[in-house]
Amino acid sequence: MFQEYDVIVVGAGHAGCEAAAAAATMGSSVLLITMNMHTIAQMSCNPAMGGVAKGQIVREIDALGGQSGIVSDKTMIQFRMLNLSKGPAMWSPRCQSDRVLFAQEWRTILENNPNVDFWQDTAKGIIVEDGKACGVTTSLGIEIRSKAVVLTNGTFLNGLIHIGEKNFGGGRTGEKSATGITEQLVFLGFESGRMKTGTPPRVDGRSLDYSKMEEQPGDEVPGKFSYSDTKPLAKQRSCWITYTNNEVHELLRTGFEKSPMFSGRIKGLGPRYCPSVEDKINRFADKDRHQIFVEPEGWDTVEVYVNGFSTSLPEDVQYAALRKIPGFENAKMFRPGYAIEYDYFPPTQLKSTLETHLISNLFFAGQINGTTGYEEAACQGLMAGINAHRNVHELDPFILKRSEAYIGVLIDDLINKGTEEPYRMFTSRAEYRTLLRQDNADIRLTEKGHHIGLASEDRLANVLRKKSEVAEITQLLATTKISPDEINSALEEIGTATLREKTSISQLLKRPQLSLVQLIDASSQVASLLENFAQDSVQQAEINIKYDSYIEKEMLLVDKMNKLENLTIIDNFNYDVVTSLSYEGREKLKRTRPGTIGQASRISGVSPSDISVLMLFIGR
Amino acid sequence: MFQEYDVIVVGAGHAGCEAAAAAATMGSSVLLITMNMHTIAQMSCNPAMGGVAKGQIVREIDALGGQSGIVSDKTMIQFRMLNLSKGPAMWSPRCQSDRVLFAQEWRTILENNPNVDFWQDTAKGIIVEDGKACGVTTSLGIEIRSKAVVLTNGTFLNGLIHIGEKNFGGGRTGEKSATGITEQLVFLGFESGRMKTGTPPRVDGRSLDYSKMEEQPGDEVPGKFSYSDTKPLAKQRSCWITYTNNEVHELLRTGFEKSPMFSGRIKGLGPRYCPSVEDKINRFADKDRHQIFVEPEGWDTVEVYVNGFSTSLPEDVQYAALRKIPGFENAKMFRPGYAIEYDYFPPTQLKSTLETHLISNLFFAGQINGTTGYEEAACQGLMAGINAHRNVHELDPFILKRSEAYIGVLIDDLINKGTEEPYRMFTSRAEYRTLLRQDNADIRLTEKGHHIGLASEDRLANVLRKKSEVAEITQLLATTKISPDEINSALEEIGTATLREKTSISQLLKRPQLSLVQLIDASSQVASLLENFAQDSVQQAEINIKYDSYIEKEMLLVDKMNKLENLTIIDNFNYDVVTSLSYEGREKLKRTRPGTIGQASRISGVSPSDISVLMLFIGR
Repeated sequence: MFQEYDVIVVGAGHAGCEAAAAAATMGSSVLLITMNMHTIAQMSCNPAMGGVAKGQIVREIDALGGQSGIVSDKTMIQFRMLNLSKGPAMWSPRCQSDRVLFAQEWRTILENNPNVDFWQDTAKGIIVEDGKACGVTTSLGIEIRSKAVVLTNGTFLNGLIHIGEKNFGGGRTGEKSATGITEQLVFLGFESGRMKTGTPPRVDGRSLDYSKMEEQPGDEVPGKFSYSDTKPLAKQRSCWITYTNNEVHELLRTGFEKSPMFSGRIKGLGPRYCPSVEDKINRFADKDRHQIFVEPEGWDTVEVYVNGFSTSLPEDVQYAALRKIPGFENAKMFRPGYAIEYDYFPPTQLKSTLETHLISNLFFAGQINGTTGYEEAACQGLMAGINAHRNVHELDPFILKRSEAYIGVLIDDLINKGTEEPYRMFTSRAEYRTLLRQDNADIRLTEKGHHIGLASEDRLANVLRKKSEVAEITQLLATTKISPDEINSALEEIGTATLREKTSISQLLKRPQLSLVQLIDASSQVASLLENFAQDSVQQAEINIKYDSYIEKEMLLVDKMNKLENLTIIDNFNYDVVTSLSYEGREKLKRTRPGTIGQASRISGVSPSDISVLMLFIGR
Repeated sequence: MFQEYDVIVVGAGHAGCEAAAAAATMGSSVLLITMNMHTIAQMSCNPAMGGVAKGQIVREIDALGGQSGIVSDKTMIQFRMLNLSKGPAMWSPRCQSDRVLFAQEWRTILENNPNVDFWQDTAKGIIVEDGKACGVTTSLGIEIRSKAVVLTNGTFLNGLIHIGEKNFGGGRTGEKSATGITEQLVFLGFESGRMKTGTPPRVDGRSLDYSKMEEQPGDEVPGKFSYSDTKPLAKQRSCWITYTNNEVHELLRTGFEKSPMFSGRIKGLGPRYCPSVEDKINRFADKDRHQIFVEPEGWDTVEVYVNGFSTSLPEDVQYAALRKIPGFENAKMFRPGYAIEYDYFPPTQLKSTLETHLISNLFFAGQINGTTGYEEAACQGLMAGINAHRNVHELDPFILKRSEAYIGVLIDDLINKGTEEPYRMFTSRAEYRTLLRQDNADIRLTEKGHHIGLASEDRLANVLRKKSEVAEITQLLATTKISPDEINSALEEIGTATLREKTSISQLLKRPQLSLVQLIDASSQVASLLENFAQDSVQQAEINIKYDSYIEKEMLLVDKMNKLENLTIIDNFNYDVVTSLSYEGREKLKRTRPGTIGQASRISGVSPSDISVLMLFIGR
């Protein structure tokens, strides 16, 4: 009934959609299996994409030729560039999305890909032959064969929803859970665990008093995620900010004895950095308020997402506490918040391609790997889809280094360190964050994405144009000198030292107080010098010049690290023959099976002396 | 946590949405409970509204001030007026809908109604006190109180999905079923039964060869459902027609031994007039082909609905058979067809308000009453919503007579005759179908809808304008005579007898061969006479004149019947004291408890002599 597919993708959330789109765009025949064709690309939690470090990931996905940036651009209702007051390494794009349009846009993109087929059913198991994944079996009892399988099961594997003392099976509220896959994988030798995540109540926007909240409009000149030709927003919807208070906290505490979190009924660990409100008031008992973002769920709907109020307390406690928040005095709930526990597989069981060590051609992406977040899921899906395609076509693995992308950091962290709680990306996780900026993801990644057949010709042409312009601008700014007469009055006004002699524009630009925009405004010489260049190139050149020394320092570190990274360890390396390894180091190395010395050095439990021993051994 | 609502509506399909909108528009506070806020107003089966008799119902809903017509108009992708070659009693509007937009539009309408609140949860039971419904309990364990409850559970009550030999619980494929309500109602004394319905596979439009099918475009001048100011379509999508053949039938037969229908695994009876394809080839073994309508599911999606191919045969049999249909040689399935069994409550347990006899303020609407079809569900929801509101506000019941609306026929049939199989509306079910036309639903019903506070002032003004114009036009056409000179050459050309003397336009119009459009074209006198009238008024007048004698005949019948209808039987009438009633007649009367002699006369098992006995008794 089914052809043999190159790649079967199980699950159609952020990870599954990117995996399917990527493999199919590169030429694989793909079957996307979803439990419900009406819920493709549902935003299960908040209606937003991007944010600190996450926005960078969306830009990277886009630069490689993935779809999340385009979908976000086409369906956003508000855009903000976060952290603009900090250095460019911290600038992070974020949008509010229209939940319904987001899902629709993804479905349209997938339907428009001639290599993507769809099948509505629940995957119940993997067909494994000779240690290789060869397809899936479904709850309809069908066997569908493929050369590779990507699992993106989200929170559905044995999903258990908690609200107060009640719990019931479900992959999301109102939806069924999925069984079978965990049990089979454990039988095959995989280690599995339980994790927990949660979501806040949704309320009726008609019942809120916005006059008691602080408006948070979108950026005056809204940006976007994609480096392609998507259009920025012409109009936007505002979000609103309000705060909890002690009365809210007191009311929430009345529910603690019924809390599945505190009673121990929930076994899985939740996301530390996206905690439930009860967790926050418990851990930070001295804080007398927490911020609440009131986020519309779309252009037209009155449904509102209460960001910051994730909770699994009894629904009547949620309700009573909500109503003590300024602006929520008459709030009506549409659905209560809840916690959900689900199975994940510690990601140390994966290669850096996201293929499992145990079963070849079997890939995991998203929450099944113990991560949290749409962006984290999407980029794993993208990488799993790319590598599933490359496996099937006997091509080299496609791996991003920690110095090349947040995506590289994420996967390297996961497979080497594993994670005990839902893993979320932060800028602090990246050691080269001056390199991994949102503005240069295209320069970092689009050529790679094009090389593997994912990023389009147009994207490549764009990047090459930008690169050559940046070089030209950098050269011009370094060689063009500006005279004291031309600029001193402006410098004085800005409050920075005046010039005594002609100085190159680059030199001036290194002053933290000065921006290129100011120089353009102040000097017709500078303005006319740059007038024919695209804005993104000008901005890129400016960042390169201003942060030159930081960038250079990180590049040196990268070089050093790359030398370690280039020392590869063969796949079946026998650690038992390296007698001088520490016991713990050997165990961790055997479990994680790093591909390079660099990777080995980042495994928790592997000591620097283990690394020296290993280098000596491999050097021989 | 919740206020006490006037009306709680359980379920947000066609019935639930109309019920909530109606009660709320009239001023009741309404809580709409749905298992999943993402699936409000899902079209579970084909993406279409209207059709023969069903289109009339949508027009009636609209004329009363319901929303289905407006939602259909705003989200249709094709419009056709069926049966235009027959008399106007048979004209039936039908549209293809965009499945996603349809659901979205309904949700927007409900959200824009300030009296509608929402709650995502599963109703598990009814709170009953002193024989009255006073709210519901939910699977979250919440009690929500109200003055009336409308149940519109669709196929969810103990829903069991069958595909070949497999079956699993679910209210729709990919969704959960609901338990608890049936069990409680049976405990309370209700009779329940099982019914069955089914749906065809959905296929990938990209895999079809439309060159082998017959195109079915929309009407050249597309109409619409609503009498309000919705706009007709500017562009349309085509449907396509193809046919099964003996090869298809042979392949389907190979699955018969695994068929849940033929093996007896399915206990419920299916819709006779919307049969599965296996049912068709089984019952009409001599027919060597059946028509298949290939219907797009929306403006952009490639998903296609295979109308006419409803089936619960094993998915591989569905697939193999599909591929023998011309144009389907390379068809890919998105999801297989399936049958679903669900609980219903024989509707003889209802009053003509759709309130149950057993529990006051408890109303049933839609498939829970054993009906099938979106339109049948929607109009029951509307009537239940209206009457729930009126009960709560101690107003008279709102009942439509068989002579006033298909809605009246439907409810009268249900509560008096019950139904053993999913009840679907046909024009043949109406004894006054010349009166119950799609063109005059506004004239029949809008004043009533306005009187109860549902139809808007605008709608009323429109109808009054139309009525007075029709009267004026009718008068003009009756009194204006046309001379042989003016018209004879045209008459000759059309092939109808020429005039010898001046004749009134009305007189001429009664000729079946002649239409008013033709007379307008042929005679500038007629044209100038009518040029200032709205088109709907002109058409209405023409129909009145042309079908005058039929209309009059039916009106006489209605008068006769109304006399019986006006003989009311009191609510607690003791049939046991009427000793001369037949045994069966008495039992049926006691079970059905008709409100009038007319209603009593339509109960199956109540004989004409029972009616005479009853009239004698009541006349006393």
